[in-house]
Amino acid sequence: MPSRRDPHRRRHRLVVLKGPVGRAGVVWLVGAGPGDPELLTLKALKLLQAADVVVHDRLTPQPILDLAGPTARLIDVGKRKSHHTLPQEDINQLLVALAREGLTVVRLKGGDPFLFGRGGEELLELRAAGVEAHVVPGVTAALAAAAGAGAALTHRGHAQAVTFVTGHAAKGAEPDLDWSSLAKANQTVVVYMGLSTAARIAARLIAAGRPGSTPAMIVENASLASERRMVTTLAELGAAADGLEGPALLVIGEVVSLADARPVAEIVEAAARASS
Amino acid sequence: MPSRRDPHRRRHRLVVLKGPVGRAGVVWLVGAGPGDPELLTLKALKLLQAADVVVHDRLTPQPILDLAGPTARLIDVGKRKSHHTLPQEDINQLLVALAREGLTVVRLKGGDPFLFGRGGEELLELRAAGVEAHVVPGVTAALAAAAGAGAALTHRGHAQAVTFVTGHAAKGAEPDLDWSSLAKANQTVVVYMGLSTAARIAARLIAAGRPGSTPAMIVENASLASERRMVTTLAELGAAADGLEGPALLVIGEVVSLADARPVAEIVEAAARASS
Repeated sequence: MPSRRDPHRRRHRLVVLKGPVGRAGVVWLVGAGPGDPELLTLKALKLLQAADVVVHDRLTPQPILDLAGPTARLIDVGKRKSHHTLPQEDINQLLVALAREGLTVVRLKGGDPFLFGRGGEELLELRAAGVEAHVVPGVTAALAAAAGAGAALTHRGHAQAVTFVTGHAAKGAEPDLDWSSLAKANQTVVVYMGLSTAARIAARLIAAGRPGSTPAMIVENASLASERRMVTTLAELGAAADGLEGPALLVIGEVVSLADARPVAEIVEAAARASS
Repeated sequence: MPSRRDPHRRRHRLVVLKGPVGRAGVVWLVGAGPGDPELLTLKALKLLQAADVVVHDRLTPQPILDLAGPTARLIDVGKRKSHHTLPQEDINQLLVALAREGLTVVRLKGGDPFLFGRGGEELLELRAAGVEAHVVPGVTAALAAAAGAGAALTHRGHAQAVTFVTGHAAKGAEPDLDWSSLAKANQTVVVYMGLSTAARIAARLIAAGRPGSTPAMIVENASLASERRMVTTLAELGAAADGLEGPALLVIGEVVSLADARPVAEIVEAAARASS
């Protein structure tokens, strides 16, 4: 259930901010969802409000951080694409050290912690260090993008499977993916972090047999007011990615033919009217 | 933000229960998450509390239904595996009819509405009927199962992709899936509704080249207190499914080697202690 913003509870948290002597700390790896604070889970909200420390990435939206208790320490370990503010190993060690201070630590991960978020590595490090750690799943960006577009990832007759991959690759390289499997029909492919490699991915899929006319879309900032959706084809995917800065997802497959063609702003307005 | 249970607001809802003359209804296709009410999104909670009518399936946990406003009408269109209480077409027509009464309708779907939930079909029918409809994504069961097990679906070095399929098939038949793609290494396969076809799926994957020794697990009632997790191998998957009644997921791939081997009850207790 959602915690209420109870001032007494907040004062109580002040007392334990440094961690009581002898109390074991705990780390919660928490999915922050796709960006819209309303797509946080109730559990994520409760943990944010109770956290002594919130460790987050650069892209975590401010309205989500604002949900942390007023005495919570916020630590940005933000990563830029080619400029890691903190290497993963340092993040792992930071989490261990905070827990050893007896603190309740929320490690916020965009979307879901266990889908391309390196949350698995953080969990293993914490367990290896003997730190209690738990994982709270979240709404992953692909599902928010699909919901916004009105295109079900596994719409009957269009896709019997959906595959999630990452388009991330070392600079200048191309992602190491199984192109022949991904090129098969009747399947939706979602590429996380695929904006900068969109043209290469499209070329590989076409070379492996997926028609260039396959519907495809890029969804930037899924679920946020700034969401942009470009509905195109696989052949035009690289061109459509030009000028976008992300974070963005690529969605490739026949289900994209169902995507809402209205401008996102118009859809958002209609949704706001309907819920008011 | 979570709506507060404000008595004034509830009385206000009473007034509009039948839908004001001339007001257009709206249908929200809302992901109910994997089962734990705390894994609802804040938006799902807000919509449940404001709904005139909640249309749900048989498996929706009662604690989630209890979050609807006290004046909301609850309609169970529950499906059993071989005994549809309401055919899909009737559900579609029901949603259209309710919206045309001017009501605010929440159509609750387990997990996410757009992943094997036939939410896509409901959305198309609503749009075709000129009914305003929106989709709210949810936490899908696979991510809850992975979080509970501590096994990231795309753990580095174990899987570069994760594929979601459904194991559902007509009685006696086998699912129509691309076995050669699913049998490839370095990939996690999640099967929704695969309990009754687990043995056939495992046999097909092994025949297509995936080693029988591949780690695999069945997670029943993911995220609920009744969650059960059977960690096994692909060769033993069919036997492990015997006696389970679901709802359950199959997770197949090397990432399952990371799954927590402790009994689920013990893990849940530890989590409860940590959050108290």
